[in-house]
Amino acid sequence: MRGIFITFEGPDGSGKSTQIKLLARHCEEVGIPVLLTREPGGTDISEDIRNLLLDPKNTDMSGVTEALLYAASRAQHVAEKIKPALEQGKIVLCDRFMDSSIAYQGYARGLGDEVRMINEFAVQGLAPDITFFLDLPPDYGRRRLEASRDPDRLELEDMSFHDKVYEAYMKLRDMYPQRYISVDATAGVEEIAEEIRRRFDEYVAGRA
Amino acid sequence: MRGIFITFEGPDGSGKSTQIKLLARHCEEVGIPVLLTREPGGTDISEDIRNLLLDPKNTDMSGVTEALLYAASRAQHVAEKIKPALEQGKIVLCDRFMDSSIAYQGYARGLGDEVRMINEFAVQGLAPDITFFLDLPPDYGRRRLEASRDPDRLELEDMSFHDKVYEAYMKLRDMYPQRYISVDATAGVEEIAEEIRRRFDEYVAGRA
Repeated sequence: MRGIFITFEGPDGSGKSTQIKLLARHCEEVGIPVLLTREPGGTDISEDIRNLLLDPKNTDMSGVTEALLYAASRAQHVAEKIKPALEQGKIVLCDRFMDSSIAYQGYARGLGDEVRMINEFAVQGLAPDITFFLDLPPDYGRRRLEASRDPDRLELEDMSFHDKVYEAYMKLRDMYPQRYISVDATAGVEEIAEEIRRRFDEYVAGRA
Repeated sequence: MRGIFITFEGPDGSGKSTQIKLLARHCEEVGIPVLLTREPGGTDISEDIRNLLLDPKNTDMSGVTEALLYAASRAQHVAEKIKPALEQGKIVLCDRFMDSSIAYQGYARGLGDEVRMINEFAVQGLAPDITFFLDLPPDYGRRRLEASRDPDRLELEDMSFHDKVYEAYMKLRDMYPQRYISVDATAGVEEIAEEIRRRFDEYVAGRA
């Protein structure tokens, strides 16, 4: 039986990496083989591409080049690691996937819907079965910021960027209601983990 | 006045690199500023990407990753070199461009029409004003091969690949009749060069 592909999405600070580890531990405890991964995913080629993206000498890199390199790195991660693990029947948990590129590069940085297209080419038809969206409204961060002191210009720009990222995720949730599961990320760690486990167990039971 | 973007396309052995140099020399002789380029185009980032593509340790690279890396390299070449030269009013002559990716990767290697889409994203609306297609029918090579001796299996496979590349160029010519200029590549070098100069001079005169 083919495995299950689960992605975790949401803004920075929403607790994705904590929650993905807790779900991985749950899988291990109930004896389901699991692969926890995140991009570049530990394949040599993807790591080489990522080094190119992060090399400080490459300040002249265009946003378009960058988006294509992220997609190339993802293509290799999918072909070499994610698809084979799914074929072996594993649960694959991935910390951020193509929705992050669509939200951050396509929408918030304004590169447009083509970012979705190049990523759909990159993943060659692989879509997540479940996407856990850790829902942390941008207002939540903004209220804390404004309560503390007068925010400066850069912090306000930053907030408008976060607003756009959040809006993009709302659109993705509306586009893919069958796979998106929103989880209230303002709740406590254990409460969130329980909700995720419950939804996960339901999904697994529904397949058996 | 914006420059003119001219690409040279056609199968290997059709004489592209000879002809592009002869047209560059013609431009210089009549005093038109010219940039002769070919991918990766001498930008640091594109060269780094190309090294990744050619690195013999990367034998596990998927065809999809490869296509995205070629597009990324092209995106940087366009943003950093071709567009600025055109804005300076130069004639830009480029030895192979996105049509080569469409013909070789998209069509002959079977990656599909998405290769055109990712390349359209890569070039961000930049299309050649003229594409000189050096038309060398695959039969031309096949007849020579068959006349000499019995071709082996690998040579025949190779021929079918060349047939597909040629078919793809025929499709591109039909898709973009306004920019495609076919030149008979079975003619002599000087005859071909004269035909290309004549078509080029006509185009320049028509713009003035």
